[in-house]
Amino acid sequence: MIKTDILIIGAGPTGLFSVFEAGLLKLKCHLIDALPQPGGQCAEIYPKKPIYDIPAYPEVLAGDLVANLMKQIEPFEPGFTLGERAETIEKQNDGSFIVTTNRGTKHHAPVVAIAGGLGSFEPRKPQLDNITNFEDNGIEYIIRDPELYRNKKVAIAGGGDSALDWSIFLADVANEVTLIHRRNEFRGALDSVEKVESLKKTGKINLITPAEVTALQGNGKLESITIKQEGEEFNLELDHFIPLFGLSPKLGPIANWGLEIEKNAIKVDNTLDYQTNIPGIYAIGDVNTYPGKLKLILCGFHEATLMCQSAYKRIFPDKKYVMKYTTVSGVDGFDGSRKEAEKAVVKSIK
Amino acid sequence: MIKTDILIIGAGPTGLFSVFEAGLLKLKCHLIDALPQPGGQCAEIYPKKPIYDIPAYPEVLAGDLVANLMKQIEPFEPGFTLGERAETIEKQNDGSFIVTTNRGTKHHAPVVAIAGGLGSFEPRKPQLDNITNFEDNGIEYIIRDPELYRNKKVAIAGGGDSALDWSIFLADVANEVTLIHRRNEFRGALDSVEKVESLKKTGKINLITPAEVTALQGNGKLESITIKQEGEEFNLELDHFIPLFGLSPKLGPIANWGLEIEKNAIKVDNTLDYQTNIPGIYAIGDVNTYPGKLKLILCGFHEATLMCQSAYKRIFPDKKYVMKYTTVSGVDGFDGSRKEAEKAVVKSIK
Ligand SMILES: Cc1cc2nc3c(=O)[nH]c(=O)nc-3n(C[C@H](O)[C@H](O)[C@H](O)COP(=O)(O)OP(=O)(O)OC[C@H]3O[C@@H](n4cnc5c(N)ncnc54)[C@H](O)[C@@H]3O)c2cc1C
Ligand SMILES: Cc1cc2nc3c(=O)[nH]c(=O)nc-3n(C[C@H](O)[C@H](O)[C@H](O)COP(=O)(O)OP(=O)(O)OC[C@H]3O[C@@H](n4cnc5c(N)ncnc54)[C@H](O)[C@@H]3O)c2cc1C
Repeated sequence: MIKTDILIIGAGPTGLFSVFEAGLLKLKCHLIDALPQPGGQCAEIYPKKPIYDIPAYPEVLAGDLVANLMKQIEPFEPGFTLGERAETIEKQNDGSFIVTTNRGTKHHAPVVAIAGGLGSFEPRKPQLDNITNFEDNGIEYIIRDPELYRNKKVAIAGGGDSALDWSIFLADVANEVTLIHRRNEFRGALDSVEKVESLKKTGKINLITPAEVTALQGNGKLESITIKQEGEEFNLELDHFIPLFGLSPKLGPIANWGLEIEKNAIKVDNTLDYQTNIPGIYAIGDVNTYPGKLKLILCGFHEATLMCQSAYKRIFPDKKYVMKYTTVSGVDGFDGSRKEAEKAVVKSIK
Repeated sequence: MIKTDILIIGAGPTGLFSVFEAGLLKLKCHLIDALPQPGGQCAEIYPKKPIYDIPAYPEVLAGDLVANLMKQIEPFEPGFTLGERAETIEKQNDGSFIVTTNRGTKHHAPVVAIAGGLGSFEPRKPQLDNITNFEDNGIEYIIRDPELYRNKKVAIAGGGDSALDWSIFLADVANEVTLIHRRNEFRGALDSVEKVESLKKTGKINLITPAEVTALQGNGKLESITIKQEGEEFNLELDHFIPLFGLSPKLGPIANWGLEIEKNAIKVDNTLDYQTNIPGIYAIGDVNTYPGKLKLILCGFHEATLMCQSAYKRIFPDKKYVMKYTTVSGVDGFDGSRKEAEKAVVKSIK
């Protein structure tokens, strides 16, 4: 059982910044995310694209935004349960909660903050009869650890950035990389498309287009796939087949937690602290809704900050908290680090 | 008469970021500030100190924060009325407002956003009978343009960072710099104190401590001051006397605009758009109050963003605005500039 002060569901920018604001209040956080890496939409959908409306950043790549947030929260040593979906929540007699993931990991906290964005990112799967039999036995929809593919025979399916970028990356890791796409045209950054073209020419990527995977074979473990190209079907022996057809967010199990839902988002009290209809459960960032709500990163930051103040009062009802400016009081990390402004001196001049 | 879409009172971080959010909605902004430079508290009180709780900035100097905001809003060509205090407001028959400063500059806009922080920064003045006679005639409390002092005889009074830093700066500009302080001890950054010490040794700064200015002489224009040091009084001839005893914020005239005030701040509707009790007048950032309010920069950014959405609806009641991500739609400046993400290509691989 993982224990923490604020359990955060969703490690997008809102969830990540919550760790910092909670840390200032000496509260520890643990984050659950269905994705294998932190950063939410920024990391999964558009890491290499610029954002222009983060305050005081005339321009910042979404991936750099996430990297900077990770650096900012590092002193507060957040815990992460990655690659797992928060599935169920049970309220305890003392008002605290136990949240369990689809892989059975249990988390216990007095406060739960749902920072789930548009929902848990779930892969779009190809329509193949027996595909679930091979999941994690040769079929992966998300690449968690590229080392899994070292010296293996791998086929990737898809025509977007993920399929292109991972084919390029794995060309140096795997023994054999085949890229299958149902059209001749790929959609992605120009340099990725050109890189795949040159790797095709040098034989490092085996390109099969326009083509589709129509069947999977194997005994417990995936052994080969059937590819249909211009009416012809043939088999390809391999160790891993990775369909990268994109991830789509689904509010999913959270929709059944008894929270008030409106327009696929969780209704919160924006007059005070972004709490949901269940005391002790907050919803912040893209996942919530209230009059005038804007699904913007900078709004999530504000909501996270007010949520932490309220969480503090819930956890320590008798303590009186006096806000201090970080500039004035410095920042004390849980890792023993301390950041502080240079102090003024009082000194006579002779 | 200066005309604009949103007239912003206060050019602190909140006011500045409003220009960006308004610009995305194609609304123009003009800012009034009592200080001679933009940046509010960050620029006036602690420009060289680090802030740790700006989202995605593990550390940023307050002065750099302001510089980055200025860069971010540059494409939206904000207007500035600096060094003037917004004094009166008159509602027009069409619901718009005319705001006049203490120097008589008039501004006309359909929406007014008060981002006045803790109030208009006003200098602390020494208690000298006839001091007002010499204001702007040899007495300045704020240095607007250092060139005013080129080859002049100048005395500065004060014992903090401003007094130290301006003495150092003017030592290279003025003909003669005298620094007067009522104690021997100065309070400031170590290197500033040491720099003044060395300039004193080389005779570039004439240091008089512990001492006080007790009288001013002149005919229309300031000609000399009386200094009292250890019981002895003597006169110093000069062109300018600059008492730098700090600025203190005062809500001032805004308190009489008919706005609901609570705890020296303006009450706003935080359930929707940070509007005050007078439709068309908003209050954002440190200057406002609502349940759970935190006087933090990041909260001002969020409030500014929601204010702009509401201002847009007030100015264009019939237009329907559909929010677009900056990453997706790019940013079109009023100066003709355009920022946009690199587009994905659709390209076949041969
Ligand atoms: C192409 C694009 C461009 C954009 N441009 C901008 C822009 O210019 N400016 C701007 O402000 N915003 C922009 N956005 C929106 C911005 O990315 C979102 O507002 C932001 O990511 C929301 O952050 P969040 O932390 O609330 O949620 P998200 O980033 O969506 O993160 C939520 C996380 O929660 C996880 N999760 C949800 N439910 C569960 C569960 N049950 N179990 C485990 N994990 C779960 C998800 O997997 C996800 O990783 C853009 C979005 C896109 C797609
Ligand atoms: C030493 C110190 C450290 C701080 N550290 C932090 C920190 O770590 N994190 C954080 O988030 N915040 C911190 N703050 C607070 C932060 O600086 C403020 O929250 C922020 O400046 C508020 O921005 P604002 O734009 O709302 O108002 P301000 O920055 O106060 O700007 C308001 C401006 O309005 C002008 N004004 C007001 N009335 C009038 C008028 N009638 N006419 C003309 N001009 C007018 C004023 O002159 C002023 O320039 C700190 C503050 C101080 C003093």
